[in-house]
Amino acid sequence: MTPAQSALLADLAPTLGSKGIVTDPADIAPWTIDWRQRFRGTAPALLAPASTAEVAAVVAAAARHRVALVPQGGNSSMVGGATPPADGSALILSLRRMNRMRSVDAAAGLAVAEAGVILSDLHDAALGQGRRFPLTLGAKGNATVGGLVSTNAGGTQVLRFGSMRGLVAGVEAVLADGSVHDGLAALKKDNRGYDLTQLLVGAEGTLGIVTAATLRLVPLPAKRTTAWAATGDPQAALALLRRFQAATDALESFEILPAESLAAVLAHVPGARAPVAGAHRWHLLIEQTDPRGVAVTEAVLADALADGLIDDATIAASEAQAADFWRIRESISDSERALGPASQHDISVPVEGMPRFMIEAAAACEARFPGTHASGFGHLGDGNIHFHVRAAPGTDPARWYAEDVPVVTRFVDDLVIAAGGSIAAEHGIGQMKLHELERLSSPARLAALRGVKAGLDPLGILNPGKLVTLAPGQPDQ
Amino acid sequence: MTPAQSALLADLAPTLGSKGIVTDPADIAPWTIDWRQRFRGTAPALLAPASTAEVAAVVAAAARHRVALVPQGGNSSMVGGATPPADGSALILSLRRMNRMRSVDAAAGLAVAEAGVILSDLHDAALGQGRRFPLTLGAKGNATVGGLVSTNAGGTQVLRFGSMRGLVAGVEAVLADGSVHDGLAALKKDNRGYDLTQLLVGAEGTLGIVTAATLRLVPLPAKRTTAWAATGDPQAALALLRRFQAATDALESFEILPAESLAAVLAHVPGARAPVAGAHRWHLLIEQTDPRGVAVTEAVLADALADGLIDDATIAASEAQAADFWRIRESISDSERALGPASQHDISVPVEGMPRFMIEAAAACEARFPGTHASGFGHLGDGNIHFHVRAAPGTDPARWYAEDVPVVTRFVDDLVIAAGGSIAAEHGIGQMKLHELERLSSPARLAALRGVKAGLDPLGILNPGKLVTLAPGQPDQ
Repeated sequence: MTPAQSALLADLAPTLGSKGIVTDPADIAPWTIDWRQRFRGTAPALLAPASTAEVAAVVAAAARHRVALVPQGGNSSMVGGATPPADGSALILSLRRMNRMRSVDAAAGLAVAEAGVILSDLHDAALGQGRRFPLTLGAKGNATVGGLVSTNAGGTQVLRFGSMRGLVAGVEAVLADGSVHDGLAALKKDNRGYDLTQLLVGAEGTLGIVTAATLRLVPLPAKRTTAWAATGDPQAALALLRRFQAATDALESFEILPAESLAAVLAHVPGARAPVAGAHRWHLLIEQTDPRGVAVTEAVLADALADGLIDDATIAASEAQAADFWRIRESISDSERALGPASQHDISVPVEGMPRFMIEAAAACEARFPGTHASGFGHLGDGNIHFHVRAAPGTDPARWYAEDVPVVTRFVDDLVIAAGGSIAAEHGIGQMKLHELERLSSPARLAALRGVKAGLDPLGILNPGKLVTLAPGQPDQ
Repeated sequence: MTPAQSALLADLAPTLGSKGIVTDPADIAPWTIDWRQRFRGTAPALLAPASTAEVAAVVAAAARHRVALVPQGGNSSMVGGATPPADGSALILSLRRMNRMRSVDAAAGLAVAEAGVILSDLHDAALGQGRRFPLTLGAKGNATVGGLVSTNAGGTQVLRFGSMRGLVAGVEAVLADGSVHDGLAALKKDNRGYDLTQLLVGAEGTLGIVTAATLRLVPLPAKRTTAWAATGDPQAALALLRRFQAATDALESFEILPAESLAAVLAHVPGARAPVAGAHRWHLLIEQTDPRGVAVTEAVLADALADGLIDDATIAASEAQAADFWRIRESISDSERALGPASQHDISVPVEGMPRFMIEAAAACEARFPGTHASGFGHLGDGNIHFHVRAAPGTDPARWYAEDVPVVTRFVDDLVIAAGGSIAAEHGIGQMKLHELERLSSPARLAALRGVKAGLDPLGILNPGKLVTLAPGQPDQ
């Protein structure tokens, strides 16, 4: 521990008490490694304030002592965004003790949740008042509101209500000098200068520490129709997406998976069954909540079958069957992991370009890296897929991750940029994509990112080494 | 003209040509006064680049010569946001020549419009492809895309699709060093660092010059139902709003006006007729586009009548009648202006608090400023009204504007802040609200606004004296 860190802890001891300052390495260890075990860091202490005032005290002291802080919620980052640097120069600032639902207002459709509230608890709190918080994702049992806001998280239900950015009506945050920005008032219209709420959404804790957020709730749908369709052509899938969007404003999910993803799930998950019989190149999971109900889905699918857009389709006859469909979708990552190491890419391109990208990028990768298998699955309706390049059979995992993945990543990222896309669709930059962002961003974008960072965190104490380097070629940490 | 300004013009002459550099005072004069004639400035030259490259050249030269620029579109700002300073220190940068629709993609629901495209032309371009751009406002024949983006404009159709912030999928902008940020790619998910698009939306040209925007289009509604209702109680109006929102996802407008606003319109507009008979304290204009059509409105209104929420209601029987309803709403400002000078306030509070605010704030103003008449009208569904305090009969207009309006404004703004609201709902800050924003913002918010400004426009050449002062107590310009 550096002298500055020791002085910081001494300053904070009266405020945080023993529950708020953790220095036992065994207690800290789990929080220094990301959940996929790709990033390992060190932190001499973990600070766990229990209130906004305590967070403010922590940040003010950190600014005074020039000690860096790494904010952390559920530690479910996919890009090492919450893992401290390896040199022990930063302390972990855990928001998990701030886990209070401050309010749920069903009439106004708003909830105020503290940063440490876990997503599934937020779901439950909304349901308890007859409303729903529409965003969900695989890590809902771990991911916290602060992390979801700070990474502008996405998921499988983004199509209609948007990612976190569209669901955050306001934030409370501690800025880099320790001052508290109270932006929780949920005003539908507010043009008091730059939108600090939207700036903090997706900032990965590098501009301020989000301590609470006002979140939009939506009515519970009276009806929900979940369907599965199969087609030989992703371009036909896109055409089907447009037909659904023309038929209803209430399309909530439009997910695509290739035959091999379905096969992996069927092989891996006991009891899983293919929703439609026969062999099909692509599968679609389609969900809508139109008040007109199942008739909307039936009509669109019947026309699509008649027109040859799809080969087969089925509508879930019960909630249990709909849950079975979703279980397939949500089991892809685990099931494919069992097939061997892969280079995983959370990318987006314009929706219109995704069918072509899925086919051409997979072919290009397999040609460039013989023996690998490449395919993408995910949120076709959002133009966002998870594109995985699986190592050739027999590849040593250690060598694959250390030597091959960086090469594969640059290759895939170049394809994404050529398609007008983003190398970070819903998982953010963190430390994993820091240098790729720098390599592939225009000088104008990079300068703007650095200008914002320098303007709001001039001492560089908030999550350093994440999202943007402060100068060209600077090391990660 | 300062030597630096002369040098700038000489530098730019080869690039902009005679059409792009206007120095005749008579040609510049109309653009140095805002349309309400509340703000008067001076500019020794008006620059009118015709392309993004030319804008980049202008800004780069301005940075080189340290000359300030005031970006301007249709010059329809309500807050003096596009009026140059009085001392002639800045040049006007007009975007009106950049008026090309670059693309309209009906399938993707996206259009790319240059900054100088006029809103009504954007409407027409979308309609030409069977789509609509849902935002509209009174100045649609003058307001340009660049100004709408830069002010996060609102209007009467915000309830469902949001203000500009929700409709901007990407921007192209020239940053303060003259570099071009190409953020037009309309990716539904893109987490490549801070959201520069959202940062530039509502920045009033103080962080960069928006040269083009990718805008969301929505389908044309198959059905549109417009209704008028009357009630004695704004709290009942709010209850009716919530019933409509529970009944349909497609509520697009919910406007409120007091009896005196309707009376002003009926007295001022030839041929205008009250939609419902009899005397009622409050009137509501309600529009929805649910595919189930008029039945939705009928059912909600019938229940509301039965429950005593409203006294009377009528549904427009034709598009012409619906247009008549809207003409009443859109004639309020002009009609009330004929009644005498007023202090006008574009304010918002949380939607739930608006009914109480409308009554209590009006009473407080009339008590504090005897002889005045105070009332609000506008977007109840957005928690945003235009609150007008009309001078006591016989008040000298010059004295009213010079001496009384600032006092009334501070009084009203204090009431708004006490209600948890915003003193700038949809019109922005500009120069009109600069000092009120400074007076009423927390130190944390002000420091953050200044940090962003300093980070992105360190030389202070972009629209100085608008939105935020660079230091406490700094003069406007």
